[in-house]
Amino acid sequence: MKYGTIRIPGEPIWKTPFPDGRLVQVSESLGILGREVRETMQSALDRGFGGLQSNHSEEFSEFEFAAPLPRAYQFLDASAYVNHVDLVRRARGAEMPERFWADPLMYQGGSDMFLGPCDPITGDPAWGIDFEAEIAVITDLIEMGSSRDEAAGAIRLVMLLNDISLRNLIPDELLKGFGFVQSKPACACSPVAVTPDALPGWDGGKLHGTLCVDLNGAPFGRAEAGEDMTFDFGVLLAHAAKTRHLGPGTVLGSGTVSNRDADGGPGRPVADGGRGYSCIAEQRMVETLRDGAPSTEFLKPGDRVKIWMNDDAGNSIFGEIYQTVAPWEGA
Amino acid sequence: MKYGTIRIPGEPIWKTPFPDGRLVQVSESLGILGREVRETMQSALDRGFGGLQSNHSEEFSEFEFAAPLPRAYQFLDASAYVNHVDLVRRARGAEMPERFWADPLMYQGGSDMFLGPCDPITGDPAWGIDFEAEIAVITDLIEMGSSRDEAAGAIRLVMLLNDISLRNLIPDELLKGFGFVQSKPACACSPVAVTPDALPGWDGGKLHGTLCVDLNGAPFGRAEAGEDMTFDFGVLLAHAAKTRHLGPGTVLGSGTVSNRDADGGPGRPVADGGRGYSCIAEQRMVETLRDGAPSTEFLKPGDRVKIWMNDDAGNSIFGEIYQTVAPWEGA
Repeated sequence: MKYGTIRIPGEPIWKTPFPDGRLVQVSESLGILGREVRETMQSALDRGFGGLQSNHSEEFSEFEFAAPLPRAYQFLDASAYVNHVDLVRRARGAEMPERFWADPLMYQGGSDMFLGPCDPITGDPAWGIDFEAEIAVITDLIEMGSSRDEAAGAIRLVMLLNDISLRNLIPDELLKGFGFVQSKPACACSPVAVTPDALPGWDGGKLHGTLCVDLNGAPFGRAEAGEDMTFDFGVLLAHAAKTRHLGPGTVLGSGTVSNRDADGGPGRPVADGGRGYSCIAEQRMVETLRDGAPSTEFLKPGDRVKIWMNDDAGNSIFGEIYQTVAPWEGA
Repeated sequence: MKYGTIRIPGEPIWKTPFPDGRLVQVSESLGILGREVRETMQSALDRGFGGLQSNHSEEFSEFEFAAPLPRAYQFLDASAYVNHVDLVRRARGAEMPERFWADPLMYQGGSDMFLGPCDPITGDPAWGIDFEAEIAVITDLIEMGSSRDEAAGAIRLVMLLNDISLRNLIPDELLKGFGFVQSKPACACSPVAVTPDALPGWDGGKLHGTLCVDLNGAPFGRAEAGEDMTFDFGVLLAHAAKTRHLGPGTVLGSGTVSNRDADGGPGRPVADGGRGYSCIAEQRMVETLRDGAPSTEFLKPGDRVKIWMNDDAGNSIFGEIYQTVAPWEGA
């Protein structure tokens, strides 16, 4: 089954009288089914998805959709593609601790205002605005101390995520030792979230498929999400649940999807026949290793980022995240 | 006005059919007013507190109360009592960066399952379980780039918080650089949250009053919450809102309340005529500075922590956080 959350179009969902939107079922071909239901995604996660009607189908437009869970009680974001972390460290001449291959990196992220798939990216270009294309899951209750298998069994939905990152604010904030606050503003989500049983590429812990990223209409990333993921979602969720319960509606992201090249080094850009990258920072890192300095700039007003995944027949599974960077007039 | 959230007693609120409980108005003397309302704290924050009926008063029992906002879309926790951070660093022979006096320390915390005031503390004693008594605010929407005054004006409620911390898990987790996940399980909240206009000790940005902490029935902390708070709540909220909006129902904690002694050094234990401490770690730090090693142990099963604040007439303002550490049988 596929689900999405529709909203009153035209203004941010948090300015409307329905900040949680309305849950709709979505057809395999991304048509909206059963628009009249009054459930929200959270109420369905709390009480079950049974009440949804699917009596008719309407045309689908990304612009009508909010994030599947427009505000969530929890967002945890991991760095499950350890390859990416290793390369980033190497680019700046630092060693990555060996334990990072065994002990997941994870941070508590903001979840109070997930952006819809077509909401603008707003920020000062001086902050170094970047995207990070990720796979994310939405879970049921996971009790403290759950095993990897128990946690994986509580995954209710899978979606795509753009974890917007402010690269120039990150070093100073991480130096303080308490993780990200200012440097990780709200993430954007794909319009559609899909149950694991409806995802052919789902193997119980990872999603296999090509995560496509276009920047300003040109291919930027074509990473294989099922490869090089050191920790699967069950392991990541069990890590988070070691000392506490995770409430229904917990969103957990994989971290930037990243593939190692055949020779073990960083991959090549799509333009050079490689799989490219799921964030600008990684392309800049490869440029730094190759040329001594990065040449690709971070995002500026007017830039357009598209993130999606097709099935084997070439149809979009989750719909598209398609965001434009807004003009910056100060805040 | 004073508000609380009641729940079906006897089991954790997240196991009941009403995971958000029911909002009730609470009288000045902590009686429950208007039990029949069907609002939740979040729906009142979204749409206003106007619909509450206050036609009768019933006896008040902490055991009936959940956290005022049993699950929130956001929890941010600061270290606004910089004195505390400075002393902790000095105790382990480290310098605190000068910028910590000007740039707030803050982390994104878990908010999906705030504990009620009398919920047990559950965890492996080997994790080094500690309490941290804090002041916290619950806000309305705060738009990105809001000023200190705009942010302070969006504070809707004030409450007390026990930020439970797993001291033995913190060093390893912070070394990874992404903040707290496993080392900061769910916080507990006071039963009652109070509007700023009903708080005589509220000066617009700080709460003045003695934050009382008892451990196993003996006075442990009597810190003055209005003193030594380097950043007030308006400054902290504006810091968090620099790069993003904060949704209605954002909870922001002050960090451990901590006073400097008259001579500028760490304060003395209550038993020695001092104001004591708002967490065990700080008492252990003072013991380390004084004796070369800590003598107070972290919490163990059966230990009881009480946190509250009285008004000038000696009446409890927020009710009591009163938690017992549960037996540990593994998870």
